[in-house]
Amino acid sequence: MIQVGIIGASGYTAVEAIKLLLRHPQAQVSVTTSRQGAGGSIADLHPQLTGRLRCTVEDLGPQQIAERCDVAFCCLPHGTSAQFVMQLQEAGVKTIDLSADYRLGTPELYHRWYGEEHPDPRRLGNVPYGLPELFVEQIQSSSLIANPGCYPTSAIVPLAPLIKEGLIELEQIIVDSKSGVSGAGRTPKQGNLYYECNETFSAYSVGNHRHQPEIVDILERFTGKPCQVVFTPHLVPMDRGILSTIYVKPRTGVTTNQIRDCLQSFYDKQPFVRVVSHLPSTKFVAHTNYVDIAVRENGPYVILLSALDNLIKGASGAAVQNMNVMFGLNPATGLLDRDDV
Amino acid sequence: MIQVGIIGASGYTAVEAIKLLLRHPQAQVSVTTSRQGAGGSIADLHPQLTGRLRCTVEDLGPQQIAERCDVAFCCLPHGTSAQFVMQLQEAGVKTIDLSADYRLGTPELYHRWYGEEHPDPRRLGNVPYGLPELFVEQIQSSSLIANPGCYPTSAIVPLAPLIKEGLIELEQIIVDSKSGVSGAGRTPKQGNLYYECNETFSAYSVGNHRHQPEIVDILERFTGKPCQVVFTPHLVPMDRGILSTIYVKPRTGVTTNQIRDCLQSFYDKQPFVRVVSHLPSTKFVAHTNYVDIAVRENGPYVILLSALDNLIKGASGAAVQNMNVMFGLNPATGLLDRDDV
Amino acid sequence: MIQVGIIGASGYTAVEAIKLLLRHPQAQVSVTTSRQGAGGSIADLHPQLTGRLRCTVEDLGPQQIAERCDVAFCCLPHGTSAQFVMQLQEAGVKTIDLSADYRLGTPELYHRWYGEEHPDPRRLGNVPYGLPELFVEQIQSSSLIANPGCYPTSAIVPLAPLIKEGLIELEQIIVDSKSGVSGAGRTPKQGNLYYECNETFSAYSVGNHRHQPEIVDILERFTGKPCQVVFTPHLVPMDRGILSTIYVKPRTGVTTNQIRDCLQSFYDKQPFVRVVSHLPSTKFVAHTNYVDIAVRENGPYVILLSALDNLIKGASGAAVQNMNVMFGLNPATGLLDRDDV
Amino acid sequence: MIQVGIIGASGYTAVEAIKLLLRHPQAQVSVTTSRQGAGGSIADLHPQLTGRLRCTVEDLGPQQIAERCDVAFCCLPHGTSAQFVMQLQEAGVKTIDLSADYRLGTPELYHRWYGEEHPDPRRLGNVPYGLPELFVEQIQSSSLIANPGCYPTSAIVPLAPLIKEGLIELEQIIVDSKSGVSGAGRTPKQGNLYYECNETFSAYSVGNHRHQPEIVDILERFTGKPCQVVFTPHLVPMDRGILSTIYVKPRTGVTTNQIRDCLQSFYDKQPFVRVVSHLPSTKFVAHTNYVDIAVRENGPYVILLSALDNLIKGASGAAVQNMNVMFGLNPATGLLDRDDV
Repeated sequence: MIQVGIIGASGYTAVEAIKLLLRHPQAQVSVTTSRQGAGGSIADLHPQLTGRLRCTVEDLGPQQIAERCDVAFCCLPHGTSAQFVMQLQEAGVKTIDLSADYRLGTPELYHRWYGEEHPDPRRLGNVPYGLPELFVEQIQSSSLIANPGCYPTSAIVPLAPLIKEGLIELEQIIVDSKSGVSGAGRTPKQGNLYYECNETFSAYSVGNHRHQPEIVDILERFTGKPCQVVFTPHLVPMDRGILSTIYVKPRTGVTTNQIRDCLQSFYDKQPFVRVVSHLPSTKFVAHTNYVDIAVRENGPYVILLSALDNLIKGASGAAVQNMNVMFGLNPATGLLDRDDV
Repeated sequence: MIQVGIIGASGYTAVEAIKLLLRHPQAQVSVTTSRQGAGGSIADLHPQLTGRLRCTVEDLGPQQIAERCDVAFCCLPHGTSAQFVMQLQEAGVKTIDLSADYRLGTPELYHRWYGEEHPDPRRLGNVPYGLPELFVEQIQSSSLIANPGCYPTSAIVPLAPLIKEGLIELEQIIVDSKSGVSGAGRTPKQGNLYYECNETFSAYSVGNHRHQPEIVDILERFTGKPCQVVFTPHLVPMDRGILSTIYVKPRTGVTTNQIRDCLQSFYDKQPFVRVVSHLPSTKFVAHTNYVDIAVRENGPYVILLSALDNLIKGASGAAVQNMNVMFGLNPATGLLDRDDV
Repeated sequence: MIQVGIIGASGYTAVEAIKLLLRHPQAQVSVTTSRQGAGGSIADLHPQLTGRLRCTVEDLGPQQIAERCDVAFCCLPHGTSAQFVMQLQEAGVKTIDLSADYRLGTPELYHRWYGEEHPDPRRLGNVPYGLPELFVEQIQSSSLIANPGCYPTSAIVPLAPLIKEGLIELEQIIVDSKSGVSGAGRTPKQGNLYYECNETFSAYSVGNHRHQPEIVDILERFTGKPCQVVFTPHLVPMDRGILSTIYVKPRTGVTTNQIRDCLQSFYDKQPFVRVVSHLPSTKFVAHTNYVDIAVRENGPYVILLSALDNLIKGASGAAVQNMNVMFGLNPATGLLDRDDV
Repeated sequence: MIQVGIIGASGYTAVEAIKLLLRHPQAQVSVTTSRQGAGGSIADLHPQLTGRLRCTVEDLGPQQIAERCDVAFCCLPHGTSAQFVMQLQEAGVKTIDLSADYRLGTPELYHRWYGEEHPDPRRLGNVPYGLPELFVEQIQSSSLIANPGCYPTSAIVPLAPLIKEGLIELEQIIVDSKSGVSGAGRTPKQGNLYYECNETFSAYSVGNHRHQPEIVDILERFTGKPCQVVFTPHLVPMDRGILSTIYVKPRTGVTTNQIRDCLQSFYDKQPFVRVVSHLPSTKFVAHTNYVDIAVRENGPYVILLSALDNLIKGASGAAVQNMNVMFGLNPATGLLDRDDV
């Protein structure tokens, strides 16, 4: 059994990771850490785990974690995370970083969007982006993975093959995304209060959300082509789920069917990407690791619609999938209905 | 007092219209009709009206309505509505049609999008579109008004001045709209059940929603310029509200500030259009007749965000506003906090 | 015009009070205070007020408030509130305290349930409880009113007449209440985050909620009879509204119809209590000052169901109603559809 | 592998049963039937199953089902269900009836509450009630199981041991229950529309809900003692989950701790009943087969709080649990995180 440490166990991605690992046939949670809940039981932080995981929450350093874990899921806030990840790497424990710290390719880009010097600049550029659908070989051979952002996954999965194959214009990509509230995390802020989010719909961070450069950076890394993306996130009054409505212009002569075919063949062998004929709905992928994609046409635009669960494929499910790849398992182990499928 | 008949009183727009009229200082509901609830009290159909409006629901013909009303709010389904409106017009009663029947400018356009012959083709093209912000003179002098669609209002209000003034490109307008569920009406359908809509987010009618030609037709009617609009509606798990995120390309040399200034000066005297500095949120306009608009920039695009309450400014509030204009009152009578403001 | 000061203007009850006062024909907001938002506009705290109330948020002392206001709505947290109210009273300004500080009748009771010494013990017992339906004469002649708790209003309104008339047993009263989340206020706490409240239902403070002694104290004050109440509050994933399901045992020989008749005749002249035949629903009273009550029977119990909007009749609407009474206006002024009704 | 037929596959309990069976190591769905969707794929009825279950929806008779299934989950409406179940039983296929048809013990009781003659009266009284926590031996040896109602499970599980052990009064049991909307099913009715259920809370069927006699009948069947229960259901604006707040009077001398201890020891070996120290919340049991129970005290009453997922432990999870018992498997197979736990 792979021994997994959950670092920063008090939040929503942590509990989702734990629940996935409880079902995983070849991994188990051996350590949970959190300053906030240290000394108590994990069920004190997450009562739904009562009777499901008997584990004391601890306040451990990297060395102690390395002694008791084969892999650490680092669920700390950005900035804090890289500082801890550096030490985990030095202690020799494989690490999947669920923060944004290792996603961007250069310290400059990080500094421009996160407003701080990166604490571990020399690793940037060498850490694989944890989308096994695109970067499986790099993930297999790395001891550190940058787990993707939830919005970027919903944009990159449908866009990457189309750009790679040269089917769409590179300067007219609009990603209009809508997310459930769990993406905002569990730290109390006025903007995340029930009454502030419920029965309302609005955009936020228009023109300056950090996932915009992440989408561009990864698309360029995968395709080798410079592209421009306009990304607008919105908050939906629901717990979980992201739907992205993506407007692209096909290159001259490219048909909507060619675009659909490209996606279907590119993801044909992938267990978690479903190119569907119905319009994707976040409820149809809730609590699963699927990304559903549909293709439609409207005037000169082709519209790509993608849906995923931001806590699963957008965070903890992707982390488990990356762990599987890192440890040479089938990428889908523990993530599909049955492991024999 | 203006005597108002509510024709088709069982639905959500009807009860919102009644509640607005209960507060109106110069109008009152004199008639409510509905086949479904005929013979009962209006409070049987809408228990929130208990003790607020004592009115029997009746099943009346146009002539009877004309005898007892100065104006009819026609809340019937499209198709059915035009047939009734024709008779109301012949009976000489001013009519505000809340259906889509008189919005499009030609019978051909109606046939293409609604799949039926229009029952009253000769009136099409002569019925003012009930946006007093754009068409106040026509509304003043007409006995029949086509009350606007909820999505179109959210798109036309921010776009019309910019097109009129030649500030944006006419072939690259994307309207990505999100609506609460009340827009789907009160007729039971599987797709409108609580469990089908709650905790999920999806697009619908992608590439073929009837409000797309309505937006284009009215923009062209107002500006005299042909334009192309890509419109995608989505369903939000909330009762009411529409947010539209609109992507436009400024013409060469046009700045974001010019676009904001254009909107501000165009709507300077309008009581219900607020060009705001914060990002619009549907909750901030819920239960009001306001449209909030903000302007942002992202790469080569300017993003217009507009929010309104689909049941008020998107339906019944607009109807009351139109009634005010038709009867020579201040357009805002009964619709703002105070009538003396 | 009555000049109203809103003390502690950043929260949900404050903005609801402001919106009600904007529609009030004989009162207006002259002052808004808040440490948090001082110096900014009230629309910065509550963007829905943009263009509706031009008012700078200030950080004022009691003397300054007294100079510019006829009445203060004190929306501060309990404990803090009484300290400020004392000074407002000394400065001679009528005060409606929306906190819990002056509701209980004795310093001992306050100390037992709030865990602190009351800062203004000598006033306790002399401050009218702001339910004009029960205490109108006291309210008329007092310069300080204790605005009722939201849950207590939903319990006291249906119970008080039945106890007064001796129709029900006094030791077997169960109040099972359910409230929307706005009752928890706008201060960020983990328990009020969207994801913690949405898609879930639970009880809280079982056996130890402070509204239990408030219900008992006021019922005893009004009826002169000692009674015992078991109160259990629950949180409903919705913005606003309280439904209380109240189980009472009729005294021997008392019928369900007698209970219904008692409520109907007791509240016959009251504008805001509707004894309805349908089952009350919080949506039917949302954004209104009504309390809806229905009476049902099940085995040996009579079940009273009451619904109100916790932010209106449960807070700010009641405050406006109390203000009306204090200033000799019709209690319903500004709170019904029309003031001429 | 146990071959399972899902009879009436278009509804919410059906799709939940299918999802549970997809994870079950010793059972699989071999047949799905539905008049509505016959000829199409199961993913047409439930798009979330795309790529997870390839199965054509058929319109089959009992004989054909018997040939291809070891057990049928009958998800038909009451009345219709018994007629089909009779034939399934004659055809020799084990049946778990998820309708209410075989729950009550006598034809008279059925007639009184369902208003119709029971189509299969002679079986009534011999069909085990599918709560393995109480009736495991009967379930093991029967070919037909009456799967429990969702509300009754939430009431019977906490009450049965206390009545059995004589700890509480039998005439003063109040069950105040609150359910998510999925319990109302997928058939379009006005009352189940999103806008009718969202942002509101109300009771329904007060004093006449069919689950009240079911609770009483089963409690009496299990304990042999006549008891009286007052049951009030309410609708919560959420997808799934039931919380019951149960007021009981301990017999003289019985303490709250004794009541808690009784529940703990009674359910000590049961995998799905958790006697918890925190207050139960429906979210903590969502998507699981757990029933969480807490015990509190308030004046003369002890309050039992129980939470379950109405679609899982209240329907399809219970059905799988019953199937496991009928086929001699561990009752928890496929229903816990891991089968080796």
